[in-house]
Amino acid sequence: MSERIEMKTIGIIRTPYRNQDEIPIQGRFCPDVEGWVDLDDCFEPGLEGLGGFSHAILLYHFHLSEKQGLVGKPYLEDKDRGVFAMRTPHRPNHIGLTVVRIGRIEGCRLNFRHVDMMDGTPIFDIKPYVVPFDCHPDATSGWITEHFKDTDVPERAVKKKPLR
Amino acid sequence: MSERIEMKTIGIIRTPYRNQDEIPIQGRFCPDVEGWVDLDDCFEPGLEGLGGFSHAILLYHFHLSEKQGLVGKPYLEDKDRGVFAMRTPHRPNHIGLTVVRIGRIEGCRLNFRHVDMMDGTPIFDIKPYVVPFDCHPDATSGWITEHFKDTDVPERAVKKKPLR
Repeated sequence: MSERIEMKTIGIIRTPYRNQDEIPIQGRFCPDVEGWVDLDDCFEPGLEGLGGFSHAILLYHFHLSEKQGLVGKPYLEDKDRGVFAMRTPHRPNHIGLTVVRIGRIEGCRLNFRHVDMMDGTPIFDIKPYVVPFDCHPDATSGWITEHFKDTDVPERAVKKKPLR
Repeated sequence: MSERIEMKTIGIIRTPYRNQDEIPIQGRFCPDVEGWVDLDDCFEPGLEGLGGFSHAILLYHFHLSEKQGLVGKPYLEDKDRGVFAMRTPHRPNHIGLTVVRIGRIEGCRLNFRHVDMMDGTPIFDIKPYVVPFDCHPDATSGWITEHFKDTDVPERAVKKKPLR
């Protein structure tokens, strides 16, 4: 009973990452790297008020993934997991989600940190990160927990190349 | 330079909400209400491992919204805000995002709490909520902050009808 729905990208994400091997699994692990969301000009009024927030949720297209596996091996380990228990790009609809730290806003451009997208990634939406809605410090993180037991930065924090 | 991308919904969200006036602005404000994600059968293997997480991020289609405003009045107040500084359904691409509390998983059905979608909402993706990626207790929430200053439940927590 699936339904087809057409999306229209609203801009492009610019990052220093032109090679998938360099990207951290989450941008927080390379906190000094900067990216830009370049919205199409017509969306500039939509950014009004976003500068008051410290973080935003970016929803974007994993445009380089051609796979849609239901089960696979996550970057962090070698055991198979269901796609809905992972953040892999190879998923139904290829929608990516990253919580980023907002820098400055210049016209229809949004500067941010916590970059984990390839340069040229098309973007669908920006949402403000709202602590009472999105922050759940009591949450448990399933199979991912053990990778953060004694460390803030797990061993495989960058997809292939080591972080240091 | 916008690009058109076709999405295919992966299932339907079942909730007790058949009237938009009853829905809380975020499901956390009515924590006892239960919903179900009914995935299409073929996606069942994708849920493997999700039961170990306490929370998930649902990405779904605001299928009843026909508007795509760039500026508008959020439910919480009467001042105009940019669409990217609000969680309104009336947004480019109409993608909704809610962090939900996972209940039980039965076959291709996921039971959850923190329900804030209409019954029959089509779903695009489920992602595990990962504390080191998604939880930012130090974040500041812009214009929304003042609505949570002295309370956990703001005055307009339900769209039209009062919560108590």
